[in-house]
Amino acid sequence: MKQDLEEKTVSTRKIFEGKVIQVQVDEVRLPNGHLSKREIVKHPGAVAVIAVTDENKMVLVRQFRKPLEKTILEIPAGKLEYKENSVECAKRELEEETGYVAAKMEKIVSFYTSPGFADEEIHLYQATGLQKRESNPDDDEFVELVELTADECFKRVETGEICDAKTIVALYHWRNAVSDQK
Amino acid sequence: MKQDLEEKTVSTRKIFEGKVIQVQVDEVRLPNGHLSKREIVKHPGAVAVIAVTDENKMVLVRQFRKPLEKTILEIPAGKLEYKENSVECAKRELEEETGYVAAKMEKIVSFYTSPGFADEEIHLYQATGLQKRESNPDDDEFVELVELTADECFKRVETGEICDAKTIVALYHWRNAVSDQK
Repeated sequence: MKQDLEEKTVSTRKIFEGKVIQVQVDEVRLPNGHLSKREIVKHPGAVAVIAVTDENKMVLVRQFRKPLEKTILEIPAGKLEYKENSVECAKRELEEETGYVAAKMEKIVSFYTSPGFADEEIHLYQATGLQKRESNPDDDEFVELVELTADECFKRVETGEICDAKTIVALYHWRNAVSDQK
Repeated sequence: MKQDLEEKTVSTRKIFEGKVIQVQVDEVRLPNGHLSKREIVKHPGAVAVIAVTDENKMVLVRQFRKPLEKTILEIPAGKLEYKENSVECAKRELEEETGYVAAKMEKIVSFYTSPGFADEEIHLYQATGLQKRESNPDDDEFVELVELTADECFKRVETGEICDAKTIVALYHWRNAVSDQK
């Protein structure tokens, strides 16, 4: 038996229109007829890139994340600009943040980061045919390039320096792809 | 050379204090001295549970997610209550949503879901020693229990019914744990 689980919107109250996110509170009618409220963050979506060098090292960036008040290691990633194609965005972000130009970008998987309160969707790509140029971050973007082997990456997961969902998905994908080849 | 990447808070403007999230805009001083703004969502954090039945099926819940306007399949999960211990929260959410009582909860990994704009951290647990009772969801929580093999799960990733970061991390972890035993 497939239940009706849908929540129908009764009204929407706009709370905040930022440069990155929008916030709203929806009043919803639950399947049992009761009313409830949902706090919702709208986000344009983002891309993230798995890029492995010829030395079999993952390309990462060290970056300060204000919401966490700390500097962490992540795979290259960035917000989608309005109406931007996600492949183009993946190429742009990889090159801006790391200086690597990819001959090819292949989609691995898309996922929502926080479906309970946000609609942010991340499109994860695999870059191949890497060539290194000078990196060219945005004027107000401060990132440091770091390249690590798989073992080094998983150690950084244990120490907590790698600690975000997209990078952990990327590392598992990389490890699986390697073990599938064996 | 390890750059100084830190952004220092100049001021904080509170935007919204909800039941689940709080929203603020911080003015920050960048490493180059420039000022910028950061839109930040504060979240209490959450737990998520990997629970595999004796038939070697992953315990999932089908749930409508208002931010996505669709029904998706996820591992059991829930927000931390104020000052709640995360192991207790994991046991409570698993039992409420699925009826499974776990003899043991073991921490697998913690990760931030959206470090660019939110501080939400998910603590992923592995439940073992499962016993089935009647599920007992919150009055206003509507979830449907679904149990799937690993192959069925990865098919649902391809079709997009499984589409959130924590569930994909959980599936990769499960597959790796199984292949490590071989």
